[in-house]
Amino acid sequence: MKLYDCASAPSPRRVRMFLAEKGIAVPTVQVDLRAGEQFSDSFRAINPDCTVPVLELDDGSHIADVIGICIYIEATRPLPALMGEEPIAKAVIAAAERRAEREGFYAVQEAFRNFTRGLQDHALPGPDAYEQIPALAERGRARVLRFFATMDTRLDDRPFVCGEAFSIADITTLVSIDFAKWIKLAIPEECVNLRRWYEAVSARPSAKA
Amino acid sequence: MKLYDCASAPSPRRVRMFLAEKGIAVPTVQVDLRAGEQFSDSFRAINPDCTVPVLELDDGSHIADVIGICIYIEATRPLPALMGEEPIAKAVIAAAERRAEREGFYAVQEAFRNFTRGLQDHALPGPDAYEQIPALAERGRARVLRFFATMDTRLDDRPFVCGEAFSIADITTLVSIDFAKWIKLAIPEECVNLRRWYEAVSARPSAKA
Repeated sequence: MKLYDCASAPSPRRVRMFLAEKGIAVPTVQVDLRAGEQFSDSFRAINPDCTVPVLELDDGSHIADVIGICIYIEATRPLPALMGEEPIAKAVIAAAERRAEREGFYAVQEAFRNFTRGLQDHALPGPDAYEQIPALAERGRARVLRFFATMDTRLDDRPFVCGEAFSIADITTLVSIDFAKWIKLAIPEECVNLRRWYEAVSARPSAKA
Repeated sequence: MKLYDCASAPSPRRVRMFLAEKGIAVPTVQVDLRAGEQFSDSFRAINPDCTVPVLELDDGSHIADVIGICIYIEATRPLPALMGEEPIAKAVIAAAERRAEREGFYAVQEAFRNFTRGLQDHALPGPDAYEQIPALAERGRARVLRFFATMDTRLDDRPFVCGEAFSIADITTLVSIDFAKWIKLAIPEECVNLRRWYEAVSARPSAKA
């Protein structure tokens, strides 16, 4: 296996952290997103969507989606389970992970991409041109603040996002919160549950992956 | 089990179609979204996010997420498999389903919710107020047109979105395309592959669920 990666970018970090929690080392190929390498002909041949991460399997096929990659890893290396073992746990974790992606990750992305100089025509990831919408940058920031509050409430009675066990929902939440630093938003002081959780999860070795 | 549903709405249709393909009949409770019943105290007690579908299990617990519900059903009633059996199929189907949701479903939703009178303060689903952004309605329409073209290309060499077998990726794609009628967009004449696929999938009994 081989992972097309960008060490500084949040999306591939979700996969790197997942692999680290599984104890799997995969060689990486760095794609320089700031230099626009994802739009090169050679990378388009690997992923026409021009995004990382992409997992290359030993047969040469590619999985070009964060969750698709994690599902593949979980299916081939089930333990430690990061996506739930019993049906209800699988469902609850998937729902929580999707919330973190939608209300956390995508909200930060909305704020970042609709504001940042240099991304004027790249308000969405991928090869298609979409102009920035300033009102969307503002909305993204408001959504991130609500995400902090929602997660703080959720973490009031449990160590991890889905209860007693660390899961992929914790990974997406952590990566989203660190991504929010790019738009200069940090967990508010009053979110004491979320801050306690953030300290604990950031201290895991996988958080450095 | 019991499904909180709204017969006219696209999100719960994804679950209804999934259940129908599995041959599972689940009693439904209709939630009148047009009358705002999802914001009532009694429904908030079931799902604070004020969205349908919600699956209620026999122990009284709730799964309030389309994919979470489908994962639960797939885990408890594996056949016919709609989310893949082998690791690579699971990954490919998840990636394709996520694309259909992101580039199809959410794009239609973006166009619909940022345009429709009566949703002025509900540009996003859920209880939080977000004002409409007219530029986002326009962007949503442009994204839907690109989705049609992308899917037409993908379906050039295969009967279903992920190859020879019908999957959850077909469900999300079909529901997104029918949802696009709400913003008066239909598959263009020149998308012959997508039109052929649409006819075939719409003719499945599950499409009426």
